[in-house]
Amino acid sequence: MPEQLTVSGLRDAILNLPTPQITGIANYGRGRQGVIPLWFGESDQPTPSFICDAAAASLRQGFTHYTPKRGIPELRGALSVYMEGLYGKPIDVDRITVTTSAMNAIMMILQAVADPGSNVVFVTPLWSNPQAAAAIIGAEPREVPLDADADAQRFLDIEKLLARVDDKTVALFVNTPNNPTGWMMEREQMRELVAFCRKRGIWLIADEVYCRLVFDRKVAPSFLEVSEAEDRLVVINSFSKTWSMTGWRLGWLTTPADIGPSLEAINEYNTSGATSFVQAAGVTAVREGEPFIRQSVDLLRENRDLVYKMLSGVRRIRLPLPRATFYAFFAVDSELDSLSLARHLIDEAGVGLAPGSAFGAGGEGSLRLCFASQRATVEEASRRLAKAFS
Amino acid sequence: MPEQLTVSGLRDAILNLPTPQITGIANYGRGRQGVIPLWFGESDQPTPSFICDAAAASLRQGFTHYTPKRGIPELRGALSVYMEGLYGKPIDVDRITVTTSAMNAIMMILQAVADPGSNVVFVTPLWSNPQAAAAIIGAEPREVPLDADADAQRFLDIEKLLARVDDKTVALFVNTPNNPTGWMMEREQMRELVAFCRKRGIWLIADEVYCRLVFDRKVAPSFLEVSEAEDRLVVINSFSKTWSMTGWRLGWLTTPADIGPSLEAINEYNTSGATSFVQAAGVTAVREGEPFIRQSVDLLRENRDLVYKMLSGVRRIRLPLPRATFYAFFAVDSELDSLSLARHLIDEAGVGLAPGSAFGAGGEGSLRLCFASQRATVEEASRRLAKAFS
Repeated sequence: MPEQLTVSGLRDAILNLPTPQITGIANYGRGRQGVIPLWFGESDQPTPSFICDAAAASLRQGFTHYTPKRGIPELRGALSVYMEGLYGKPIDVDRITVTTSAMNAIMMILQAVADPGSNVVFVTPLWSNPQAAAAIIGAEPREVPLDADADAQRFLDIEKLLARVDDKTVALFVNTPNNPTGWMMEREQMRELVAFCRKRGIWLIADEVYCRLVFDRKVAPSFLEVSEAEDRLVVINSFSKTWSMTGWRLGWLTTPADIGPSLEAINEYNTSGATSFVQAAGVTAVREGEPFIRQSVDLLRENRDLVYKMLSGVRRIRLPLPRATFYAFFAVDSELDSLSLARHLIDEAGVGLAPGSAFGAGGEGSLRLCFASQRATVEEASRRLAKAFS
Repeated sequence: MPEQLTVSGLRDAILNLPTPQITGIANYGRGRQGVIPLWFGESDQPTPSFICDAAAASLRQGFTHYTPKRGIPELRGALSVYMEGLYGKPIDVDRITVTTSAMNAIMMILQAVADPGSNVVFVTPLWSNPQAAAAIIGAEPREVPLDADADAQRFLDIEKLLARVDDKTVALFVNTPNNPTGWMMEREQMRELVAFCRKRGIWLIADEVYCRLVFDRKVAPSFLEVSEAEDRLVVINSFSKTWSMTGWRLGWLTTPADIGPSLEAINEYNTSGATSFVQAAGVTAVREGEPFIRQSVDLLRENRDLVYKMLSGVRRIRLPLPRATFYAFFAVDSELDSLSLARHLIDEAGVGLAPGSAFGAGGEGSLRLCFASQRATVEEASRRLAKAFS
């Protein structure tokens, strides 16, 4: 056996990957009579029909061949116009690369900048996939947890974050608005991070896939607003959450234009690009989706208020009002094992939540409830939880 | 700037990636009046309508959510039945992982087995993406070219291949039937490779995406036929070529069952799985696609015979009869720069071919013609080429 292979034949880095805990809890609860599944981060409603119709029309037109590796020009153009409208500044099409999901966009950019032996600093709690992607490519994932006040409201101590950066750090990774906490970084801190990364010559990777699911404004603050086109900034985005297209696998990267040719090659060697007619439907989503987004956010706001009203006063639960995303992330007093608790709630309360331990440092002791389901479903789940914790 | 980053901010491994030459030649020739584009490996016809209809029906049913990370059970089950039918032996569903394209399947399995500093030995000429994927993850790609007789017919000197394996080799990579040469490995050599890899404890990665595009039998020989379920064998497959679904991005891996959980995690952290309704359409393709495949192969055989008849006798050209794939890979006497020649043929003959230099060691001096277009198109291209080389 060659010295590089373990007994199983797989790399240690692969054997040491954390078990995806949300998948685990879903496998535990799926198919059980009466369990309300709120473990995943997606709506219980299908993609709106105007987007499905666009995909079907593209299929009828025979748009089933290979596409340019950075995405079809129509979609890159539509995304440029869309982001310019959101942020009130030019976002040139040369900065945009269409990808097969935000997840693959993260894998791609880590492949581009993170050598084996380097490290990437992640603000947590955070859905755990980005750290796992870093581990797969042999980079060290370093976690810096958000702090929390007595009401479990999260905030970022930026000094603490920057103190974890050393000579081997190639990138900072921030997810804002944040899955799972609903925390959202404001422009002032964004400016500090951009300035720090500029000075150190390292990359800032911003996962902004929840930027439209925000309750007090039209769009969340973006690093694109407080940076220059040449900054080492990569903004990750996705169609999954904004347009209810989780199953479609479509995302995009906004980067400095000069790394575009390298991203084209990396996309070629990862997936060779997103599905042709899915990209065509993406054009329709971007151009015609604003009424759907407004309606979705209104429904989500109602659900958020409902969950907050029903759970925030419950004994043992500390739930701050989420300002963005479709998650209620609540701390449970004296809870040391959220995975066991999540299993217990499936068994005893008939509600499926994601355990906080799935989200890295700072997540243990909490549970994540996705309130993107129908109002009656969310209400019944909240009722059961309130009873279970009382 | 951290020590891990170059001036551009990207890894050396990325900056050193070869420019995709086929994309380059397509960019050179695309949009030119009258040029016949035969540079890519795909049919000029859209995906058959029964498959498109299945995708549209799945969309209408609202099948737009996240799917299990190894693929929907219906598709894994259909693939198990399909392969059992082809090879006459059990291929358990636990051995099957659905992926976003064969390309991503290759990236995934290399991530699983190839540590930075290891090496992977590739039989070439070979479409260059697998070697680039190895380079991205920091493994050394080693190329062993097929030999060619006086008629440019390729054959593998298996001793030469095995001589390149050393203590840091984690895998052998063989693409059979081969893109671009049409070479096809027979069972006897397959058995030798399986035995060698078993003895050395290394992986055998077989890219068999052209297994159904074969002209003298129903399916090409497969490593699945000459191995045990526990062997360190990974067979890569794809919907692109067999069912004319290049733009759909759907493939699958067949592996030992025991690495399934690791592949589930790797798939999660790469793309989080293939598009939901694309997988549903894949079920229809596999179950109802045999008449389409028969018809396609009949048309391809006619085209192959036509190209062979028109080009094999031409001065300077040496073209063996392709036994599989939809490529005619012909050597051009005293040709030292196939990329320049490919450009010249676009300019002077109005035909777009892929340069042999795009396919690694052993490819220079040849050109690849994809004969998957309509008969009249292939005939006109052959006529122009015969004239240009006479």
